[in-house]
Amino acid sequence: MSGNTFGKLFCVTTFGESHGPALGCIVDGCPPGLAIGEEEIQLELDRRKPGTSRYTTQRREADRVKILSGVFEGKTTGTPIGLLIENTDQRSKDYSDIAEQVRPAHADYSYWQKYGVRDYRGGGRSSARETAMRVAAGAIAKKWLKEKYGIRVRGYLSQLGPIAVEKLDWEQVDRNPFFCPDADKVPEMEAYMQALIKEGNSIGARISVQASAVPAGLGEPVFDRLDADLAQGLMSINAVKGVEIGAGFASVAQKGTEHRDEIAPEGFLSNNAGGVLGGISSGQDLIAHIALKPTSSLRIPGRSIDVHGNPIEVVTKGRHDPCVGIRATPIAEAMMALVLIDHVLRQRGQNGDTAPGVATVGR
Amino acid sequence: MSGNTFGKLFCVTTFGESHGPALGCIVDGCPPGLAIGEEEIQLELDRRKPGTSRYTTQRREADRVKILSGVFEGKTTGTPIGLLIENTDQRSKDYSDIAEQVRPAHADYSYWQKYGVRDYRGGGRSSARETAMRVAAGAIAKKWLKEKYGIRVRGYLSQLGPIAVEKLDWEQVDRNPFFCPDADKVPEMEAYMQALIKEGNSIGARISVQASAVPAGLGEPVFDRLDADLAQGLMSINAVKGVEIGAGFASVAQKGTEHRDEIAPEGFLSNNAGGVLGGISSGQDLIAHIALKPTSSLRIPGRSIDVHGNPIEVVTKGRHDPCVGIRATPIAEAMMALVLIDHVLRQRGQNGDTAPGVATVGR
Amino acid sequence: MSGNTFGKLFCVTTFGESHGPALGCIVDGCPPGLAIGEEEIQLELDRRKPGTSRYTTQRREADRVKILSGVFEGKTTGTPIGLLIENTDQRSKDYSDIAEQVRPAHADYSYWQKYGVRDYRGGGRSSARETAMRVAAGAIAKKWLKEKYGIRVRGYLSQLGPIAVEKLDWEQVDRNPFFCPDADKVPEMEAYMQALIKEGNSIGARISVQASAVPAGLGEPVFDRLDADLAQGLMSINAVKGVEIGAGFASVAQKGTEHRDEIAPEGFLSNNAGGVLGGISSGQDLIAHIALKPTSSLRIPGRSIDVHGNPIEVVTKGRHDPCVGIRATPIAEAMMALVLIDHVLRQRGQNGDTAPGVATVGR
Amino acid sequence: MSGNTFGKLFCVTTFGESHGPALGCIVDGCPPGLAIGEEEIQLELDRRKPGTSRYTTQRREADRVKILSGVFEGKTTGTPIGLLIENTDQRSKDYSDIAEQVRPAHADYSYWQKYGVRDYRGGGRSSARETAMRVAAGAIAKKWLKEKYGIRVRGYLSQLGPIAVEKLDWEQVDRNPFFCPDADKVPEMEAYMQALIKEGNSIGARISVQASAVPAGLGEPVFDRLDADLAQGLMSINAVKGVEIGAGFASVAQKGTEHRDEIAPEGFLSNNAGGVLGGISSGQDLIAHIALKPTSSLRIPGRSIDVHGNPIEVVTKGRHDPCVGIRATPIAEAMMALVLIDHVLRQRGQNGDTAPGVATVGR
Repeated sequence: MSGNTFGKLFCVTTFGESHGPALGCIVDGCPPGLAIGEEEIQLELDRRKPGTSRYTTQRREADRVKILSGVFEGKTTGTPIGLLIENTDQRSKDYSDIAEQVRPAHADYSYWQKYGVRDYRGGGRSSARETAMRVAAGAIAKKWLKEKYGIRVRGYLSQLGPIAVEKLDWEQVDRNPFFCPDADKVPEMEAYMQALIKEGNSIGARISVQASAVPAGLGEPVFDRLDADLAQGLMSINAVKGVEIGAGFASVAQKGTEHRDEIAPEGFLSNNAGGVLGGISSGQDLIAHIALKPTSSLRIPGRSIDVHGNPIEVVTKGRHDPCVGIRATPIAEAMMALVLIDHVLRQRGQNGDTAPGVATVGR
Repeated sequence: MSGNTFGKLFCVTTFGESHGPALGCIVDGCPPGLAIGEEEIQLELDRRKPGTSRYTTQRREADRVKILSGVFEGKTTGTPIGLLIENTDQRSKDYSDIAEQVRPAHADYSYWQKYGVRDYRGGGRSSARETAMRVAAGAIAKKWLKEKYGIRVRGYLSQLGPIAVEKLDWEQVDRNPFFCPDADKVPEMEAYMQALIKEGNSIGARISVQASAVPAGLGEPVFDRLDADLAQGLMSINAVKGVEIGAGFASVAQKGTEHRDEIAPEGFLSNNAGGVLGGISSGQDLIAHIALKPTSSLRIPGRSIDVHGNPIEVVTKGRHDPCVGIRATPIAEAMMALVLIDHVLRQRGQNGDTAPGVATVGR
Repeated sequence: MSGNTFGKLFCVTTFGESHGPALGCIVDGCPPGLAIGEEEIQLELDRRKPGTSRYTTQRREADRVKILSGVFEGKTTGTPIGLLIENTDQRSKDYSDIAEQVRPAHADYSYWQKYGVRDYRGGGRSSARETAMRVAAGAIAKKWLKEKYGIRVRGYLSQLGPIAVEKLDWEQVDRNPFFCPDADKVPEMEAYMQALIKEGNSIGARISVQASAVPAGLGEPVFDRLDADLAQGLMSINAVKGVEIGAGFASVAQKGTEHRDEIAPEGFLSNNAGGVLGGISSGQDLIAHIALKPTSSLRIPGRSIDVHGNPIEVVTKGRHDPCVGIRATPIAEAMMALVLIDHVLRQRGQNGDTAPGVATVGR
Repeated sequence: MSGNTFGKLFCVTTFGESHGPALGCIVDGCPPGLAIGEEEIQLELDRRKPGTSRYTTQRREADRVKILSGVFEGKTTGTPIGLLIENTDQRSKDYSDIAEQVRPAHADYSYWQKYGVRDYRGGGRSSARETAMRVAAGAIAKKWLKEKYGIRVRGYLSQLGPIAVEKLDWEQVDRNPFFCPDADKVPEMEAYMQALIKEGNSIGARISVQASAVPAGLGEPVFDRLDADLAQGLMSINAVKGVEIGAGFASVAQKGTEHRDEIAPEGFLSNNAGGVLGGISSGQDLIAHIALKPTSSLRIPGRSIDVHGNPIEVVTKGRHDPCVGIRATPIAEAMMALVLIDHVLRQRGQNGDTAPGVATVGR
């Protein structure tokens, strides 16, 4: 398959460039009978929308999503769902000056090497704008998981540059522009961001995502493990450089007696596994963490070359997030939801009603 | 697709339980004309084989691989290559006692929940033994990549529990049982492992893999990015809990000016990206790191339940690696090779000879 | 994968109901650098458009296609191409009366059984209207095949009910509303259709498609044979009930000496194989034939049931083709083009430049 | 995917050359809990085995199948099932003389063009011997379909060259070497075959396959229709040149009033559709017919070329079926079973328990 489809049974295929006429996607394989409307999808889109705070790009994206098919009288019909977002704020002129530039840490060089041509306007296909469609498709997946099995997917910012959160208060997450679950850290983050903006620099971030009420039995070893598919989905998000499940890299220094999650008749006594054993969900919360690199568009000059190989100095003008990680939370949630729904459908299809896990899923 | 096939054009499908009659795989999509023999594949298999040192399980695995198809007069024909390894050392009786146990941190619970039945002998399908076929298939991929494009895939142990390596001397890697590239650390590792064995405990590890001479232009955004497919491949290895590309989680605390790899006419000035920009190879070395959890089979008793939900105490007897990570290096290399060959074929097919990247690939 | 994507490397995913807001598709995997514009795609769409003659439904379909992504400065960029056609002529009221009817030989019953709900307006997803997007995607494939390898895909009506064509004059095909290559048969066909319309009945048809200048070596045995993929593609067209390659069903009564295509140094001496040997193209013209059933919407009453199981009498009102086959020629051409481009890309990727066939393809 | 895997959820991947060490396949995605043994698979293999009558090749094939994984204590575990058949009767010397010949109507030319190399011994991968693994995998699918849903897949020879059967008596099918359901035609067929053998010629055949008790709701429009996937599966069988569903090519000359299957409260009144409406099963018997070309290996000399392009005369010696169609019945049954089980799993996964069709399937 070409690279723009995600999922085996719940398949999301996206298209669209940052400054083309529109972005869109096809959600193929959504079960029939789910009540869904544009406004519900819009709510998720608005969570990732830029311009919501001074800490994110000021670019205005109306991002009004339209449902073009697959929904009849307010319910999914089982046929492919076409979603469309028109690009209202294109401003191509902003980008004409970078037509021949190869910006460091951007996809300019690799796209140009791969395709020989590229839509340089705002990064074209490699723009973070592409992730809007993931969030739209994820909104459908999230609703189905919630309605059908009570599965809930949530995420938060766990670290902003040097500032790590210490408390996980879900109530706080949507009350600040950082998706930060620790109210005490918000002022510190605001101060940090202001200094960063003045400096013209950017910073990385760590996002955590988890799903609760995940039935046991999801995942198809040995390659399509639940954690492996999750790793692909999360690593496919722009700027992500690392993925952890449960204890992640902390496992390196753990002894077996520390890491192993002991089991009592009433359940597991810890969750270093992050809810996955042997690539299959254990029924515990599914927990993942991702590392996002700092934004590559900086006001501080950087050395680079143009497409002819001449040395140039690159300085980014215009609207950019000093920390892409801030807006990544809804995107990471969407990818986890897409992985989960796909595996619920696969489990239901392949392992039917013969195993306890499926019985749970079939509930 | 079901979960036991890896790759889109270079497809590896595996089968086999730890204590069944045999393990095997089908390599479908290997280009014709590659000279390959059983002995070359055997060399890679021997690198991962247990029983090679006192720090790995003493189980004897003859692991003699047979080529059953797809190779004629010493060369691949383009038809599927069938590979088989017979299980010579089964010892099922060793495992009869755990038939009803749910061992902590093992796949017992999740397999049982998913399928309702399981081959409990030595972990059955969830045994690390399954990875032998990945190494066998990877040996074919490695040879093709080397012969056709000079791409070289290599790995090493970068951390054993608390002991991190400080030097990367490729010469050393195959000279010690740890795949450790830093000779000075070997005695420390040996002492650590001996204490661990005496204690009856286990430890985690960090493995690093890289590929050199990777052509620019590999990867199919936005979902089948080179780094995303690599993340899936590496996360699908038993015991892996985390994957990093380039700077990985260090990116979280990096500023844009630190992280971005500046470019001079003679090339990139650093490699925080790990050789991937926008999901496409940049022509720099492809660099990944993985975290492996400590072995779950311990002589130190642990609390758990049996399949009836009764509380039990689990104590592992018999032969087990105190550190699964030690043997993971050849497996990680194999997965990186499988991802690379698949993307070379995809790039060659889809983007043909129209882009500089492909021109390189087509060379 | 879900069922609305066709192709492995050149992937076409479609969406859209007959009377929803729009139809669309994503063409993922189109090689970069192809010059393509909306008007070229429109030309193919106009060939299948209804309302072009009194022998096809009088429904007006503006069918203006828009390119939403993947094309920059007139050329494909290698990123997914989004195509959209808005439904301008919906007339939902026409269909309200059939909301609870199960029309014989329509997909009403099976869709209802499968999904439990259905968009009954004009057949919803099962409407022949869906094929418009295949033709749009096929137009891109056709152009690439022609430009890159000189491959030409063409089709014609070979039989209309009892009237079989006797001459194949390509010049004639686009000069009559039937895509009939035999000018002498056109008056007979016109008379036949007029009688049929008066009668309120419909008729089946046979369409033939072929591709010239097909390089040898296309097709991936044993399952993804060129002829097998072609059979799937053609059988997936609405109303198709049979597919033949080359001599097709005539082979049943042929002796080996008749059927085998002998070979001379200057080439094959016949083409009963239809250009495929062992599932791989031989370099001869690729030839296929399809059987289309008569339209199911008739003015002559038929016995059926409603969704409650009560017996009803069904009479179709409104605009319908008395022969769906008439408009199927461009659709069949599109499917053959989609199969060919996919296999050219697969061959180029998988078998690279090591085989004569590929050398041809690589030319 | 490469070309040797069939199915999306119930995936069969095969390998093996006619004269290599062994043939094998991996059945990935078989639901757990199915009781299956080697002997049951063997029964199906014996039905297609050559050497069973004077009308088929006298080659001896022991064809003893071994189950290497995926079955524990007599039941499937949900993990991949490895199947192996060792080639006991290789006789490579028989074939050395054709190493450089390009035999008319064989895959010699196309394989050579595609891969540049080929295992010429007995046709290598293009030999009908490959179909043994389809029958083995099909046996598992057949048993599951029967046990789980009562679905029964059966086939018969409907025409041998000029001799068409007139009666369909299922009892007769396994009582003669032709799979002929019409006892009165058997003597005629025997006489015809004897004359053919004396003449050194071969003949085509028509095979019919059907499935009963098929639940409504199977098939994934618009591309992965049940009939489209069936067409691919059947066309992928060696020597097949045509596929029909229900009335097939007869539909061309049918009027709508003849073709449409009217419906009464008690069910459909005819079955021209062959059990598929809009690409989805209707609950009627699923009916398909295939055309097989005459064997290409003849004692009567034919004109051809060698791999150097020189004109040669080809005469086949050794053991060959004068009619490949005779042995195709079990193979066609296997392919229909593989398509059905895959779609049952897809329906169960994707459309769950929300639709009547699925309810049936879920029963």
